[in-house]
Amino acid sequence: MDMRNSAMDSPPSRTRRRLLGRLAAGSFAASQAATAADLLKPLEIAPSSRVPGAPVLDHPYGVPSPYEADVVRRSARAWPVPGAASSMTPLADLHGTITPNGLTYERHHGGVPDIHPDRHRLAIHGFVRTPKLFTMDDLLRLPSESRIHFLECSGNTGSEWNGPSGLPVQLTHGLLSCCEWTGVRLSTLLDEVGGLAKPIDAANGWLLAEGADAAVMTRSLPLERILERALVVYAQNGERLRPENGYPLRLIVPGFEGNTNVKWLRRLKVVDAPLQTREETSKYTSLLANGTARQFAFEMDAKSVITRPSPGHRLTAHGYYPITGLAWSGRGTIRKVEVSTDGGANWRLARLDGVIHDRALTRFRADWQWDGGAAAILSRATDSSGYVQPTRAELVAARGLNSQYHYNAIQQWRVETSGEVRNA
Amino acid sequence: MDMRNSAMDSPPSRTRRRLLGRLAAGSFAASQAATAADLLKPLEIAPSSRVPGAPVLDHPYGVPSPYEADVVRRSARAWPVPGAASSMTPLADLHGTITPNGLTYERHHGGVPDIHPDRHRLAIHGFVRTPKLFTMDDLLRLPSESRIHFLECSGNTGSEWNGPSGLPVQLTHGLLSCCEWTGVRLSTLLDEVGGLAKPIDAANGWLLAEGADAAVMTRSLPLERILERALVVYAQNGERLRPENGYPLRLIVPGFEGNTNVKWLRRLKVVDAPLQTREETSKYTSLLANGTARQFAFEMDAKSVITRPSPGHRLTAHGYYPITGLAWSGRGTIRKVEVSTDGGANWRLARLDGVIHDRALTRFRADWQWDGGAAAILSRATDSSGYVQPTRAELVAARGLNSQYHYNAIQQWRVETSGEVRNA
Repeated sequence: MDMRNSAMDSPPSRTRRRLLGRLAAGSFAASQAATAADLLKPLEIAPSSRVPGAPVLDHPYGVPSPYEADVVRRSARAWPVPGAASSMTPLADLHGTITPNGLTYERHHGGVPDIHPDRHRLAIHGFVRTPKLFTMDDLLRLPSESRIHFLECSGNTGSEWNGPSGLPVQLTHGLLSCCEWTGVRLSTLLDEVGGLAKPIDAANGWLLAEGADAAVMTRSLPLERILERALVVYAQNGERLRPENGYPLRLIVPGFEGNTNVKWLRRLKVVDAPLQTREETSKYTSLLANGTARQFAFEMDAKSVITRPSPGHRLTAHGYYPITGLAWSGRGTIRKVEVSTDGGANWRLARLDGVIHDRALTRFRADWQWDGGAAAILSRATDSSGYVQPTRAELVAARGLNSQYHYNAIQQWRVETSGEVRNA
Repeated sequence: MDMRNSAMDSPPSRTRRRLLGRLAAGSFAASQAATAADLLKPLEIAPSSRVPGAPVLDHPYGVPSPYEADVVRRSARAWPVPGAASSMTPLADLHGTITPNGLTYERHHGGVPDIHPDRHRLAIHGFVRTPKLFTMDDLLRLPSESRIHFLECSGNTGSEWNGPSGLPVQLTHGLLSCCEWTGVRLSTLLDEVGGLAKPIDAANGWLLAEGADAAVMTRSLPLERILERALVVYAQNGERLRPENGYPLRLIVPGFEGNTNVKWLRRLKVVDAPLQTREETSKYTSLLANGTARQFAFEMDAKSVITRPSPGHRLTAHGYYPITGLAWSGRGTIRKVEVSTDGGANWRLARLDGVIHDRALTRFRADWQWDGGAAAILSRATDSSGYVQPTRAELVAARGLNSQYHYNAIQQWRVETSGEVRNA
């Protein structure tokens, strides 16, 4: 299968074609109810039971089915600067809450560095009592923990600031993933360097995190707000980090905008004030309508989106459809998700799957009887702080239209009488 | 990277070599604490910051770092019958509880069939009111749910029935994985076919599950014990099932031995008694010491194993080491895990990570100060039913030595004064 070709194909049209192929492909896809009499006869032998299957150890590291070759990361646009790009998770084709590592979104500013794990070092210095360099083996010898958390780029869904973009959910909301991360708590590492040095304490200290990539990605983080939750991680979904997700080491700051979760992490320096790096002045700061800047807006506010049905899917017959999607909040857990199928006039509670994890994707589900008429389907998340996902109008009233970041408004998909689902 | 070569290399020796390379590789791996003075000077620029990194869209479906090329599934032995084999999850190299799809263990009896999802059908018939065929699209239009559950082959750890095998944990316990599964509840599907037909009800009915592979894998399952929990799933860790894990459809019976989670699922027939298929007579039944057979022993009993340190790892210096491993039970949640470092004379409680999921892997962790002497490290799980993982002697007393299945005894690793860890 030629991944390059599928990635370079026009994403929305390919997504739509594929999903049409899946959901409305004529002879095979129509719902087929055999008669009871047919089924009580012995079933025919499956064609795949008549021939030996393929061996597995050709794939000691497994790969997806060739029939899923178009479920890949895609970019919403061509990137003008070499080495700076992002690629987005195919949310419309995914189920549950865990993002497989091969489909985890990524954003990079200077390409993906090639770092030998035996040569990598993490320096912890600045206002700490005993600055130290850590090898990867040193880090593996420290107490660790695993937690499931979402990651979202602060630019995610920026396409919708000026109204519906027409894009499918992979390209509107796909800078979003959720993995189980394993690593060492920041607080454990600070204990390893003897703790903070005067005059710095957790209440007034900041932390500079620096990546070993060609962009030397650097962010300043307020210690008090991250100390108990931040992890320095080496594994995602069980295995070591993928190269584009920070191999061999990255920071995870649960709930904070993606870029602060510095990848290829080589340095943590305790400082007494934010360092006003490029990534917190010229980028990742929002210009408000009144001309002032909203800087260090770390937490990703509560948000949700319907992933199925979503643009590219097509309803093929009147009747029952499950509505499902994802909700998350950088400030805690998801308390509830409401769904509307009439453009927001009426709302009802969605079911939430299983155990609700802190600062993790939560899968919601609702039942819908489609009567064949035009409809507009929406979801609205409320988090454990009581914050309610705003409408676009409310968000624009508060933030204006000068920024591309932190767009978390309610997202509407239109269902046409043809069954087509559109971002309009 | 040549996966085939790494898979065909002798697994234990390669595992050991790799881990020695990681943990005791001379110039790089020794713990290195720079002086404070060095670290307060500006850090040198990372070599990887001096050159542009690689693009990502060459890998729209991502792959692991080349430095992790030997973290792959392996088989403990050569399989004499073409098309029948298994491959095992590299537990010693994994972290957390989620198994990435590429490393999820698999067992197949007739190779991996090639099934086009648009042509696949699931038949539900037998003692049901309205037998039906379901397409994949039909299934995607039904209410679904996602849950995290372990899967374990009933033959897992069979290598240890006669005492320590010398094998590393991948080859003793690696027929074990844990994923987030998404699909339709069995009870929902039975509603879709009008419910059970008289004289069958949930209390006396059995369910025949049949695979579309060349082995036509078939198992009989007691309806009452699986009705509320079993799922017919199409996705694992977010994406569609991998081919070797049942693409496009499989049964998940949480807590039941792996082979009952029938892959490439094509048929569910409600019957009035178990059908005594090949897989429940000549295989997957245990001969006890008194000559009687233990048949339909579905639930995997509570079990745990230390994955780090484990054979192949080597301790390089006296001092602190974290002990970590996995615990699970087919009968509910893990209530506690105890760890011993003196061969079982003394036990202490391990910490359990985060949220404990029902019938899922649970990560445990304990602190250990290694004094450089010989040691024997063990873990013991207790589940929510109160069942305590037995010693090997207790297990053999109850079951004898005639069976290769359902070995769940406490596993001991010896730590030599050299730091080598052995299964002895």
